Amino acid sequence: MTAAGERKDGERNLLLTLAFDGSAFHGSAVQKNAPTVQGALQQALRQIFGEAPALKCASRTDAGVHARTFCVSFRTGSAIPCERLVEALNAYLPEAAAVRSCREVEADFHARYSCKGKRYCYRILNSRIRDPFLLSTTFRVPYPLDWERMDRAAKAFLGTHDFSAFCSAGGSVEDHRRTVFAAAVRKAGELIAFETAGDGFLYNMVRIMAGTLIEIGAGKRPEEDILRALEAGDRRLAGFTAPACGLRLEEIYY
Amino acid sequence: MTAAGERKDGERNLLLTLAFDGSAFHGSAVQKNAPTVQGALQQALRQIFGEAPALKCASRTDAGVHARTFCVSFRTGSAIPCERLVEALNAYLPEAAAVRSCREVEADFHARYSCKGKRYCYRILNSRIRDPFLLSTTFRVPYPLDWERMDRAAKAFLGTHDFSAFCSAGGSVEDHRRTVFAAAVRKAGELIAFETAGDGFLYNMVRIMAGTLIEIGAGKRPEEDILRALEAGDRRLAGFTAPACGLRLEEIYY
Repeated sequence: MTAAGERKDGERNLLLTLAFDGSAFHGSAVQKNAPTVQGALQQALRQIFGEAPALKCASRTDAGVHARTFCVSFRTGSAIPCERLVEALNAYLPEAAAVRSCREVEADFHARYSCKGKRYCYRILNSRIRDPFLLSTTFRVPYPLDWERMDRAAKAFLGTHDFSAFCSAGGSVEDHRRTVFAAAVRKAGELIAFETAGDGFLYNMVRIMAGTLIEIGAGKRPEEDILRALEAGDRRLAGFTAPACGLRLEEIYY
Repeated sequence: MTAAGERKDGERNLLLTLAFDGSAFHGSAVQKNAPTVQGALQQALRQIFGEAPALKCASRTDAGVHARTFCVSFRTGSAIPCERLVEALNAYLPEAAAVRSCREVEADFHARYSCKGKRYCYRILNSRIRDPFLLSTTFRVPYPLDWERMDRAAKAFLGTHDFSAFCSAGGSVEDHRRTVFAAAVRKAGELIAFETAGDGFLYNMVRIMAGTLIEIGAGKRPEEDILRALEAGDRRLAGFTAPACGLRLEEIYY
């Protein structure tokens, strides 16, 4: 056994960066009898190392949520060079996941606890007609959305707030105060993207933020509803939880 | 029975524009016991009209080839408005295909014979590491490609040539002369795209053009090989047939 932060002789602490198509997994966290990102990674590491190290994941993502960047750290006594480990992992992982990089980090680095923040993107296809190429990576809204109104409204998320109104029941954390650094809505063709970065996000927080913005963009709610929901801390004052398929974890800050 | 070009009273000639993800179909042309775009469209039209009209398709695409634009024309005595037909078809079609538009055209219009040209894009992911979001819509080349060299070489395709060297056996046409209006290679991040437009393309022509350019970009062939293959008209002098998944029919000109 090693105490936290202590380095055993010859043991390295490695940080993996992955990307995955969430439609192929039942979320990131390991589950029995369902394919998960963590489960697939454990199995691949077991095939390479002979045993699976304990994995520390930067976040838990729900079934269907995608990641362009997902970070995992673990300790290993194996001397296999980082570049070779990337190749070996990609040979064993299912195609819907890929290890993009591997590097050695300080002994006390922890993919979850060392995380300073994250950036997410929620993508909406605003079209009456589906796009066969964007079925699993966008949420389609067939009625018109006013993206500029959504962008204005999104500014209410900026700063430090109690985000209880933007959190589903079932989360394990007690402190619901989070700081949002960025919140903007942009449009390119029929795609509307809500991008947000913050020091941390509660259970379903980005999806509820996106759902509320969609209702504002459709004219079903006044722009001021976000401020009102934040102040009251009441989940019922915020909008619906937008589907997982539109959400992608883009970046993790350390 | 109506003679070609003749309009029966109350009969309309309709032009549908579709998009489809080719990985879900065994090509566009109807086949027994395999899902095809034409088969799916016939079945959807049968459910709406009670019978399936004879479909004229702008082109035949191979299994795995995608289309952002695919055109089909047919005659119908049905009075259902175009906009309603789009909605009804999209309700019956599998999600991997979508009708983007429908409009009435002249009685003598024929999706195949009236076609003036097409534009295709062949997309290459030039990366040692796969991208889980681009598995079915790009061809991944893990070794470095010199896209500027590919772009220079592609110019040899421009103009009117006998494209016998860029045609797989099994095509039904005898005249192999085609005119290429555009042929360019561009790079954006790890994506390299070969775009080409012409008055018509032979069986596997764009895929063999792409395969030859990839071999040139990898330094396995001199740039002059394209001219040499065109002049000799010998399939063995051109490169490999690049996989279907990288190819997408982008536009059809009438």
